[in-house]
Amino acid sequence: MYKILVINGPNMNMLGTREKGIYGSQTLDEINQSISTYASSMRIKCDFYQSNSEGDIIDQIHRVKDEYDGCIINAGAYTHYSYAIHDAIKAVGKPFIEVHMSNVYSREEFRHKSVIAPACKGVIAGFGRNSYLLGISALYDLIKQNEKN
Amino acid sequence: MYKILVINGPNMNMLGTREKGIYGSQTLDEINQSISTYASSMRIKCDFYQSNSEGDIIDQIHRVKDEYDGCIINAGAYTHYSYAIHDAIKAVGKPFIEVHMSNVYSREEFRHKSVIAPACKGVIAGFGRNSYLLGISALYDLIKQNEKN
Amino acid sequence: MYKILVINGPNMNMLGTREKGIYGSQTLDEINQSISTYASSMRIKCDFYQSNSEGDIIDQIHRVKDEYDGCIINAGAYTHYSYAIHDAIKAVGKPFIEVHMSNVYSREEFRHKSVIAPACKGVIAGFGRNSYLLGISALYDLIKQNEKN
Amino acid sequence: MYKILVINGPNMNMLGTREKGIYGSQTLDEINQSISTYASSMRIKCDFYQSNSEGDIIDQIHRVKDEYDGCIINAGAYTHYSYAIHDAIKAVGKPFIEVHMSNVYSREEFRHKSVIAPACKGVIAGFGRNSYLLGISALYDLIKQNEKN
Amino acid sequence: MYKILVINGPNMNMLGTREKGIYGSQTLDEINQSISTYASSMRIKCDFYQSNSEGDIIDQIHRVKDEYDGCIINAGAYTHYSYAIHDAIKAVGKPFIEVHMSNVYSREEFRHKSVIAPACKGVIAGFGRNSYLLGISALYDLIKQNEKN
Amino acid sequence: MYKILVINGPNMNMLGTREKGIYGSQTLDEINQSISTYASSMRIKCDFYQSNSEGDIIDQIHRVKDEYDGCIINAGAYTHYSYAIHDAIKAVGKPFIEVHMSNVYSREEFRHKSVIAPACKGVIAGFGRNSYLLGISALYDLIKQNEKN
Amino acid sequence: MYKILVINGPNMNMLGTREKGIYGSQTLDEINQSISTYASSMRIKCDFYQSNSEGDIIDQIHRVKDEYDGCIINAGAYTHYSYAIHDAIKAVGKPFIEVHMSNVYSREEFRHKSVIAPACKGVIAGFGRNSYLLGISALYDLIKQNEKN
Amino acid sequence: MYKILVINGPNMNMLGTREKGIYGSQTLDEINQSISTYASSMRIKCDFYQSNSEGDIIDQIHRVKDEYDGCIINAGAYTHYSYAIHDAIKAVGKPFIEVHMSNVYSREEFRHKSVIAPACKGVIAGFGRNSYLLGISALYDLIKQNEKN
Amino acid sequence: MYKILVINGPNMNMLGTREKGIYGSQTLDEINQSISTYASSMRIKCDFYQSNSEGDIIDQIHRVKDEYDGCIINAGAYTHYSYAIHDAIKAVGKPFIEVHMSNVYSREEFRHKSVIAPACKGVIAGFGRNSYLLGISALYDLIKQNEKN
Amino acid sequence: MYKILVINGPNMNMLGTREKGIYGSQTLDEINQSISTYASSMRIKCDFYQSNSEGDIIDQIHRVKDEYDGCIINAGAYTHYSYAIHDAIKAVGKPFIEVHMSNVYSREEFRHKSVIAPACKGVIAGFGRNSYLLGISALYDLIKQNEKN
Amino acid sequence: MYKILVINGPNMNMLGTREKGIYGSQTLDEINQSISTYASSMRIKCDFYQSNSEGDIIDQIHRVKDEYDGCIINAGAYTHYSYAIHDAIKAVGKPFIEVHMSNVYSREEFRHKSVIAPACKGVIAGFGRNSYLLGISALYDLIKQNEKN
Amino acid sequence: MYKILVINGPNMNMLGTREKGIYGSQTLDEINQSISTYASSMRIKCDFYQSNSEGDIIDQIHRVKDEYDGCIINAGAYTHYSYAIHDAIKAVGKPFIEVHMSNVYSREEFRHKSVIAPACKGVIAGFGRNSYLLGISALYDLIKQNEKN
Repeated sequence: MYKILVINGPNMNMLGTREKGIYGSQTLDEINQSISTYASSMRIKCDFYQSNSEGDIIDQIHRVKDEYDGCIINAGAYTHYSYAIHDAIKAVGKPFIEVHMSNVYSREEFRHKSVIAPACKGVIAGFGRNSYLLGISALYDLIKQNEKN
Repeated sequence: MYKILVINGPNMNMLGTREKGIYGSQTLDEINQSISTYASSMRIKCDFYQSNSEGDIIDQIHRVKDEYDGCIINAGAYTHYSYAIHDAIKAVGKPFIEVHMSNVYSREEFRHKSVIAPACKGVIAGFGRNSYLLGISALYDLIKQNEKN
Repeated sequence: MYKILVINGPNMNMLGTREKGIYGSQTLDEINQSISTYASSMRIKCDFYQSNSEGDIIDQIHRVKDEYDGCIINAGAYTHYSYAIHDAIKAVGKPFIEVHMSNVYSREEFRHKSVIAPACKGVIAGFGRNSYLLGISALYDLIKQNEKN
Repeated sequence: MYKILVINGPNMNMLGTREKGIYGSQTLDEINQSISTYASSMRIKCDFYQSNSEGDIIDQIHRVKDEYDGCIINAGAYTHYSYAIHDAIKAVGKPFIEVHMSNVYSREEFRHKSVIAPACKGVIAGFGRNSYLLGISALYDLIKQNEKN
Repeated sequence: MYKILVINGPNMNMLGTREKGIYGSQTLDEINQSISTYASSMRIKCDFYQSNSEGDIIDQIHRVKDEYDGCIINAGAYTHYSYAIHDAIKAVGKPFIEVHMSNVYSREEFRHKSVIAPACKGVIAGFGRNSYLLGISALYDLIKQNEKN
Repeated sequence: MYKILVINGPNMNMLGTREKGIYGSQTLDEINQSISTYASSMRIKCDFYQSNSEGDIIDQIHRVKDEYDGCIINAGAYTHYSYAIHDAIKAVGKPFIEVHMSNVYSREEFRHKSVIAPACKGVIAGFGRNSYLLGISALYDLIKQNEKN
Repeated sequence: MYKILVINGPNMNMLGTREKGIYGSQTLDEINQSISTYASSMRIKCDFYQSNSEGDIIDQIHRVKDEYDGCIINAGAYTHYSYAIHDAIKAVGKPFIEVHMSNVYSREEFRHKSVIAPACKGVIAGFGRNSYLLGISALYDLIKQNEKN
Repeated sequence: MYKILVINGPNMNMLGTREKGIYGSQTLDEINQSISTYASSMRIKCDFYQSNSEGDIIDQIHRVKDEYDGCIINAGAYTHYSYAIHDAIKAVGKPFIEVHMSNVYSREEFRHKSVIAPACKGVIAGFGRNSYLLGISALYDLIKQNEKN
Repeated sequence: MYKILVINGPNMNMLGTREKGIYGSQTLDEINQSISTYASSMRIKCDFYQSNSEGDIIDQIHRVKDEYDGCIINAGAYTHYSYAIHDAIKAVGKPFIEVHMSNVYSREEFRHKSVIAPACKGVIAGFGRNSYLLGISALYDLIKQNEKN
Repeated sequence: MYKILVINGPNMNMLGTREKGIYGSQTLDEINQSISTYASSMRIKCDFYQSNSEGDIIDQIHRVKDEYDGCIINAGAYTHYSYAIHDAIKAVGKPFIEVHMSNVYSREEFRHKSVIAPACKGVIAGFGRNSYLLGISALYDLIKQNEKN
Repeated sequence: MYKILVINGPNMNMLGTREKGIYGSQTLDEINQSISTYASSMRIKCDFYQSNSEGDIIDQIHRVKDEYDGCIINAGAYTHYSYAIHDAIKAVGKPFIEVHMSNVYSREEFRHKSVIAPACKGVIAGFGRNSYLLGISALYDLIKQNEKN
Repeated sequence: MYKILVINGPNMNMLGTREKGIYGSQTLDEINQSISTYASSMRIKCDFYQSNSEGDIIDQIHRVKDEYDGCIINAGAYTHYSYAIHDAIKAVGKPFIEVHMSNVYSREEFRHKSVIAPACKGVIAGFGRNSYLLGISALYDLIKQNEKN
């Protein structure tokens, strides 16, 4: 059984009340519940972490090195300027997948650039809650592939 | 049963021989076969189209309007400058998903910007052949959701 | 009697169904019909050509050299990056007029720049179908003027 | 009978003597005479205003609100930096058409950008005196169209 | 009793009719009346000046040197490019406060930069009519403070 | 009686000792005392929060949603790059006012741009301690206005 | 005897009181007096014009066409953005010399670019009052040279 | 005997009539004839292909993989923006040489940048017809060198 | 005996396991041990602090004001965007030295710019662990020098 | 009697044969002769130096410190990028005047920026040989003025 | 018999030892020997000059005016910023050809721009030693052509 | 015993008289004396070279290849644009350290970028004369380290 960490960054704790036109009306807990259910069907155990603090997110990323097989990260607005998170991911030898609920490329200019993506294996954006589920599925394959090599 | 079109743009016909370090050694036909199999398991019928011509790709995009429920598009290098493809997608009222096999964000600067993404529902990049399969799965949910509304 | 070519670029074949808020509900055929009627009242014979392919558009532009007195061109999104179309117009010694149905200057940033305009005699944008009719009228005067010199 | 205002901006009073290679040898009065004749054939009454002062031009634009059905404006070099004129046009609920005698897109870089165009209905450039006549024709249709709605 | 000048720049005379969604439905006279009442409660006498002309605004700014204790200025669109107004304020040794009714930072890109602000004591933007009243209050304190030194 | 939160960002705890030429010699406590006194005269109760941590500031901003009627925020240097704070403010449906003690527009280039301002109702900068008091006054009016609607 | 016009732009009427560290303590009248004396020693008659209005300055520039042999222009801050003044100078077939009292290249970035210089014969900057006298001398030679050809 | 493909891009079919001051008066057929003669003297067989279509050019580039020893390419204006052609060349393991008849570096700004050059072995520009002959000679050496390794 | 603080920013806790090709295989503790030994030979007492949190780093920087004679700071990726850390250093009247283990100037573009350097006395980069020891030595001289003045 | 150095930079030795349309047909020796004659009429002794080498020019600039009262410098193309010459002038406490024969502002973009001007007292450009004579005159006044203080 | 000068710029004297992966293992003398042999077969006499000094290179370029029929120049890194060399070539009425051994367009960004190319007849890059031989051949044709006219 | 070369670039010969506020009052000879003493205490023999000429500096850098174990270089203003010096250092297989006396990052914008740093092992800036001594110490360790490998 694989073990992965799902990290949500700043303001994701406001899901369900925050700009519903963009992010939908589910709370983060409800979304995490769906992820958990979906993941366990693939025999993946998910831990969840949310923080508004860049430093705390980096601390958690570091934990992936020894405790998890991979990580799904939605770094919220930190996606666009946190080179520190970029470096944290680089420092850990496990696969990371960047996800976004909204299609960041059809929103404000500043959301078009991710400084984190170059350190991740891939990016999934625009599918609401489903972005996480697709991320789980993609991560599963990456972990299995790594095992083979 | 849903019907979707999978469009591959310039140089994707060279898969299997083209820069294998980046794109892997499967041919486009082999990948399409996997997609077809995966899709039919979800009762989706896939048609496949590949062209190196911007104009032909636009012609096919237009066909989606009346003949398909949605579209997966890997526009290759056109992704980065074809505003004509952007406009074509906008002109069609069906969900499009942009996919890339490689993580375009960790490659040359010019690949970091997609002029097509703002017209699509979402983007999936970096998972090799799996990018297409995840795209099928994501598209399936978008189509179902549209039906409900 | 003068003979002119009216070239419509990518996605103009979708008129009538494409983003009606911007482009109106007339089809390209209906618009061409209006142009034809208007032109023949000035004893101008119009041929019409539409293509989504940059290369085909260039082929047609070259035909203007020997077969037409001038050309009305709405190059669609190619307007904003096709230096090849720019060069094609330069290579032909006849007057070209760039037209757009929408006011491109009040839309997305990328539509504000035309790489084709420097090779044309003038630009008319923002008047819907009327942009073409004004273009016919302007072209008529340019051709007559050329004859005099 | 419609009533429109034709505004000419800085240095247009020098027409006929100013850089004739670019602007031709007709004076502004001669051009206005042609416009007047052409307009009255469409039962439009034209008033003419020329000033080198940004402030005076804004004052006149404001007058369009209550006294005219629409406006033709050639703002000369102010076209390229007068956000104040842009705002003035926005503040008036009548159709404005931006015209230029020369093809501004084939001249110096600074003339390629119009800060006024986004506030106008459309742009006509490159046809010498004829740019104004085409503007009258285009404005006529816009006014008629507005009446219908 | 202090004496201050309130300068309003281009298009502010259109208040009450101009883009009400942004600027509200009060006329400039009504706003000036509120300012006057508020100011006199602090024993400040306000003079008001509005012009669409950059040059006239500069003339008035110069008058502040000898005739007023300070100035509230809403330079409208000149805010974004009039280095001449910037220099005028610098040439006068009295406190100036830049005000805007709308939150210029949430509007078009060109409104985000003020070339005048570096010459002023401070900036107040986004509070409608209230921006002026807050400006009066701020200016009052600056003048009193200057007196002490 | 209204309840508002006053948030001070990084380095504001150093007031009174930090670059006195720019920020004056009052400590943050002394300034908060003035704010409290002034606010209570308008029957507003102020809570105060200062932190050097971006994450903690976001946590506090979220608290405004349910516990306060509005917020005064001086985000210090985070003003210029914290899109996470921008998103936090957007996620809360209450009025925020951005304040700065110094005139940021006359200092280093990097201080001229606020990424937070587009999410706030307005901006007040340059009046030292008074910027806060003016902010209280402005916020009071915004809250009252909201109540009416 | 030659006849030239000396034009001074915005804020030059404040000389003697305006930022003396940069511009010195002489008034514009005193400087004009020096210029007049110096010029008459070369049998040049100088007229002087100062205005804060861009439009008025353009009007005066136009007068040079028929009434003067050349022009010295210090366009103040308009130097840096008035393409309308640039066009005005171009429209007049007489030699213009751009002068500045201060060394604009060692001041703020925005003063480093002159949009007027390309239309002038030459530029003299940095010598205080002497910039004008050197300009007179340079203009004298240009006029004499023109006479010969 | 070596076999190479000579690809000419958009508007090269207009040689001999197109802007003769820049491109000379020889037709493409005449130039190809010279190339053929020159190449056969080195025991190289040349095939020639010209198209105005980006897609067709890419198709031909792919053919080089199995059918030719190398390629001379003058991609015309596509040189400056066709990342798809760049990728096509990268996908083929044979030497490509970019040639231009004119000195692109002394013409319009947009011609100074080649997006194709990084995928080619080298660039030859500015020698008219001779650019192709020099390209043949350079390519001959590259092919021979490859054979040795 | 002097007392200095050595601050290490984000991801420095991963030294020894993180990208060893760039950072070597020593852990932060081992490096700190070397620093301590070296410093005590100069009769300097070092305290060490590492955090991934921008806010915590700022808190520590503030402590330097009263508790230390100077500070060595390796702010990791915060170096490149944390204006808040820049301001923190400015707010403290003690000498700071910026150090980096790697030669940041030969790595990714984003690492070439330090927003912190202008607030420090100097920068030392590229010498691995030795960067810290050189920093200690440089700081020692700065402190001694300050004592003299 | 004053003593000044006239430095001419790269390619100025080619005067009289170099692009005569821009620089005229006088040789540098003939121009120096004129300068000498003019200067001696003001009791100034001129030494002349020309070199194509940046380093040699810097050596000569240093000599001004002790051996001359001031310097006229036409640094040719070094004007546009030699920060080393900028620093050299700064290192010498004597007045320098930058001169150019042509109006650099109406030529190629790269000639519009001088990196040397901020270190000089002033700039004179566009008057051919006369630029030097005006420079002598301007320098004379600067030296005299310095003597007084 | 023609006479040409081959100029090699900075660091070309290090050939054979310098970055062999890029420049190969031949010394400059060996390359010059090949050039000489090749050239004499076309009855061209080559002189060779290498210097690391920008000034010395300019001196040699000037000598081409009277002593040579043309010049091959590899200006090394000066290619990318020496406007002085650009001007030197412009000042000489003989054909110059810019050559580079490596494909500068596939290396660092700063090598993509040549400030010298606009002054040369053409550019040849990427063929190692062969770039010089192709240059000789191209120059031969240019000289012969010039003789005919 | 190691042997190193200390290279000082343009204007460093003016130390002691040049802008003392920035560079201190010691002459270059005095500084070199300190370096020599310090180095010999580590059994390093230093040679010193200063030149204002880019070419001469490159010549010296080349000498490091065979005659020295490493090099300290303060390239003065050449630091910011001499790609030729960058290439020279790359061409030599010995360790180079870039030093600056002043903190270049707190001075003019143009000094913030070093084009030389990517070719060096590391950078030390801001410690006056001490920058050299720290450089010697750092270089010593690099040389010793190289010996071991």
